[in-house]
Amino acid sequence: MAILFKASVDNADLWRQEIGKRLPDVDFRVWPDFGDPAEIEYLLAFRAEPGMFSRFPNLKAVLATGAGVDGILGEPDYPRGLPLARIVDDWMTNQIVQWVVHAVLHFERRFEDYAAQQRRCEWKELETWSERVPRVGILGCGEIGGAAGRLLAAMEFDVAGWTRRPRDLGPIANFAGEEGLIPFLRRSDHLVCLLPLTEATAGILDARTLAELPRGAFVINAARGRHVVTEDLMAALDSGQVAGAFLDVTDPEPLPPDHPLWRHPKVLITPHVAGITNPYTAAAQIAENIRRIRSGEPLLNEVDTRSGY
Amino acid sequence: MAILFKASVDNADLWRQEIGKRLPDVDFRVWPDFGDPAEIEYLLAFRAEPGMFSRFPNLKAVLATGAGVDGILGEPDYPRGLPLARIVDDWMTNQIVQWVVHAVLHFERRFEDYAAQQRRCEWKELETWSERVPRVGILGCGEIGGAAGRLLAAMEFDVAGWTRRPRDLGPIANFAGEEGLIPFLRRSDHLVCLLPLTEATAGILDARTLAELPRGAFVINAARGRHVVTEDLMAALDSGQVAGAFLDVTDPEPLPPDHPLWRHPKVLITPHVAGITNPYTAAAQIAENIRRIRSGEPLLNEVDTRSGY
Repeated sequence: MAILFKASVDNADLWRQEIGKRLPDVDFRVWPDFGDPAEIEYLLAFRAEPGMFSRFPNLKAVLATGAGVDGILGEPDYPRGLPLARIVDDWMTNQIVQWVVHAVLHFERRFEDYAAQQRRCEWKELETWSERVPRVGILGCGEIGGAAGRLLAAMEFDVAGWTRRPRDLGPIANFAGEEGLIPFLRRSDHLVCLLPLTEATAGILDARTLAELPRGAFVINAARGRHVVTEDLMAALDSGQVAGAFLDVTDPEPLPPDHPLWRHPKVLITPHVAGITNPYTAAAQIAENIRRIRSGEPLLNEVDTRSGY
Repeated sequence: MAILFKASVDNADLWRQEIGKRLPDVDFRVWPDFGDPAEIEYLLAFRAEPGMFSRFPNLKAVLATGAGVDGILGEPDYPRGLPLARIVDDWMTNQIVQWVVHAVLHFERRFEDYAAQQRRCEWKELETWSERVPRVGILGCGEIGGAAGRLLAAMEFDVAGWTRRPRDLGPIANFAGEEGLIPFLRRSDHLVCLLPLTEATAGILDARTLAELPRGAFVINAARGRHVVTEDLMAALDSGQVAGAFLDVTDPEPLPPDHPLWRHPKVLITPHVAGITNPYTAAAQIAENIRRIRSGEPLLNEVDTRSGY
């Protein structure tokens, strides 16, 4: 049995070690040195190469090394019925929660404005007491969004979460489905995108939806760059409809050095680091899934390859 | 009965209205137009003027308009036995909690480094998976510190709180008293100061105590500027002993435009805005305290004028 690893190649030795501890008989190969493609039964990958799947006729499963699987399912030759699992990891969830909480507080408490004052050596109070309760909207309110939303609610934000189907989100108000989207956007002073990237969600934040936000809202994206139509976001920033954007993901990605997003004065960018994969816990989940396939048990964190999450 | 108001003078009319709603018979005077000093029974103030108290022979209480009373008790002529109350307000507590949580996340997740990369249009992951659990130490762990610490613990920080006397802080490890201070400092990757300013705490963060922090620690001060010996902090930043400082308060304050703290590359400054007073809730507490004094009941949030908090 051979596993082909095609992910964070810097860490391939660590992954080999952690998988090998749990499955000592495994033949661990690293892309692009995969040898005889007919021997590859498991693919560990974050992003597929074009035409990749047709090369490996005996794949039993694809085990994504990240929480999102759009880099796998985006490949048109993904074989129907091939099982796919993603990583669900408390450590990674918490990392994204931290990133989101920071971004909301950063905008709400005007830290960019205070940094600008500091550059001018200016001591001036910008905030004042207000009866306004800031509203956060979490677009894609699953495990990560729920955890971030509960923390923000504990810090007196009025939090709502949008989901595809109605869900009980505890202290977080739920808006669901197509008919819930516009009312949800209209009450989101801080819009946090944590959606999976699917055909239904690609480009969801465009001129039409950004226009439904309260004027001066903030856009925070820790999901995928392609959820946002970049030019529409820049136009909304320039018009003042959106007051700021905190982006961990961009379209294109990596963002080329000459892209105007880098230098936009209302945009903050981190290079897709909100939640990184922990090879120790991820390797354990992947080894467990290989064991499950061999013994005919259901996969952990299996993805519905039609809906994409 | 006359009240003398000497605080956020911009808001004097709002305070007059909110006090007047609750105590319609009150004679509300605004500093410096206090009229006959013998008529002043209550002083509402954030900071006293030198020699102020000897002018008002008939004061029954001082009702501070902030959470800290060092601006009142720092006056050497504060009369022995004159009752003093401070504001304890959920809204203000939450504001400071937000400020502290933001500061810890800002340093822990390297947002300053990413901002520097953005200025160079550079897409590069700086973080990686680590088994290290970041440790936060809250120096002065009362209501505000406890709330901030519980939120940070929920985001997987290892949180400890230092108090003068031993206390049960729930999920937060407690270090107490003089003998607990050095062990507490030695485990604080992020040191958050929320102490009251008293003779015992002024200058507590100096060359000697900063040297006990783990090398590369962060210093976060939302208490009072005089807790920190500014030159010692700058020396520790320059040597690399302290990797960054987030300061809502400074010494001196306001920070003069030519002060080197403003331009220090490892220092972030906000102008004493972490927790501002909400005149609506604060006026309600002050009116209630005046009612209590008149009817001989104990004050809300009374301060021990010997310990200073």
